[in-house]
Amino acid sequence: MSIKESDNFKNSGDYIQSLDRGLQVIQAFSQQDRSLTVSGVAKKTGLSRPTARRILLTLEHLGFAESENNAYSLTARTLSLGYAYLSSNNTWSLAHPFMREFVAKTEESCSISILDGTDVLYVARVSTKRIMSINLDVGSRLPAYATSMGHVLLAYLEEDELEKYMDAINFEQYTSKTITDKEQLRQVLAEVRERGWGGVDQQFEEGLRSIAVPLRNETGKVIAAINCSAHAGRTSKEMLREEFLPILKESAEKINQAIAATNTANLL
Amino acid sequence: MSIKESDNFKNSGDYIQSLDRGLQVIQAFSQQDRSLTVSGVAKKTGLSRPTARRILLTLEHLGFAESENNAYSLTARTLSLGYAYLSSNNTWSLAHPFMREFVAKTEESCSISILDGTDVLYVARVSTKRIMSINLDVGSRLPAYATSMGHVLLAYLEEDELEKYMDAINFEQYTSKTITDKEQLRQVLAEVRERGWGGVDQQFEEGLRSIAVPLRNETGKVIAAINCSAHAGRTSKEMLREEFLPILKESAEKINQAIAATNTANLL
Repeated sequence: MSIKESDNFKNSGDYIQSLDRGLQVIQAFSQQDRSLTVSGVAKKTGLSRPTARRILLTLEHLGFAESENNAYSLTARTLSLGYAYLSSNNTWSLAHPFMREFVAKTEESCSISILDGTDVLYVARVSTKRIMSINLDVGSRLPAYATSMGHVLLAYLEEDELEKYMDAINFEQYTSKTITDKEQLRQVLAEVRERGWGGVDQQFEEGLRSIAVPLRNETGKVIAAINCSAHAGRTSKEMLREEFLPILKESAEKINQAIAATNTANLL
Repeated sequence: MSIKESDNFKNSGDYIQSLDRGLQVIQAFSQQDRSLTVSGVAKKTGLSRPTARRILLTLEHLGFAESENNAYSLTARTLSLGYAYLSSNNTWSLAHPFMREFVAKTEESCSISILDGTDVLYVARVSTKRIMSINLDVGSRLPAYATSMGHVLLAYLEEDELEKYMDAINFEQYTSKTITDKEQLRQVLAEVRERGWGGVDQQFEEGLRSIAVPLRNETGKVIAAINCSAHAGRTSKEMLREEFLPILKESAEKINQAIAATNTANLL
């Protein structure tokens, strides 16, 4: 949606501003901001203090937030909101057995994400690590330009969609290897399209490398990306490319077939 | 919160009705209702059609919903809402390694839940099954009276809280074994309190049995329950009680210590 269309909707009688703001407040909480005061929420969201206060009181009343010494935090009931999506979408649950098979074969983690705005958004994850980093659980977001799944998702965008992304991009230098230049990113995406897979070596976080391939629906349209992420200290680039990439492609193919079978079945 | 307090808040200037309604609409979607028309949402939530329509249009505008042929469905962006809680709460992520250890030892699934209203709400889950039932993922809800974790959570409620629960309860006969009587439930809860663990044999679903023990914070207060759930055809009641219960108690003890260590560390 262009900025103009967006403004038009906001000026229409259909836009419910307080719902928009309430959802912004929920998303203001994070690992860094596990509890926030009214002022803290106001500052993070750009809302006025009285508005932030009313929203927090309403969320508390509804059981989505709780307060202690004037600091608010979210309650587990908030999970019900994300769960409404998960339970209403079985595409990613049907991918799970194939992801588990991949993890069993490679002993590396496997995730699926989609493009949401300028981020990749994790919709499924199977990890072998005993201590799962909560930062990479379902629902987490990473900047598309710095991740292998992001490269895959961007590489298969329609041209006008890619231009929109390029206009909206806001580069940040996460490591010395992060791509922070549009021209360089375009070259990488062309290569990803050419060879059919994406690979990132410590561009988002030191010590983390990953490869990714596209997932497609029954019409061949790329609808998500699946990756294998590994510790750089343990898994070399060659291992990822030569050993794990063929297995990842195989898993993707099985998931594509499962998606096609389900979607076709739904058409009957 | 009593019904009276609730009404008072709703009549105060602080209550934002449209936020309440918007969150209701998000939760109207489920596995059974993956896509809903304006009328469908109105019917499920009790809202008027014009109100339901405005909320759906606003959610679509914000990227939380999408529509096709007048039917709306949630988008993956909705996961961001639940993730805001998960990433802002690390209690359940610190339980993960111990849950994984339990699953490795027993080859059965392990979950943690809290009491939310009259439901148990899943906040963490580690499964050994290759095909993970999405119905029992983080964020799912089950009626407390029909589950082993529910029995544990109810057994350790303060008396007045238990009476509130009893007043609000709405029994449904899920299987021939489901408890559907308050007096019988009270007896079960007394037994759970007495022996320190809960067990349910196919009371919620045929073929599913589980055991559960409490998780406590550093003050000894029960804050959650952890369970082991198993297929009745594969795992006998004796196996659960004699083999898995001691391992589950051990895992719970380790998690309790980790919670205490973290909470105490936070106090410094």
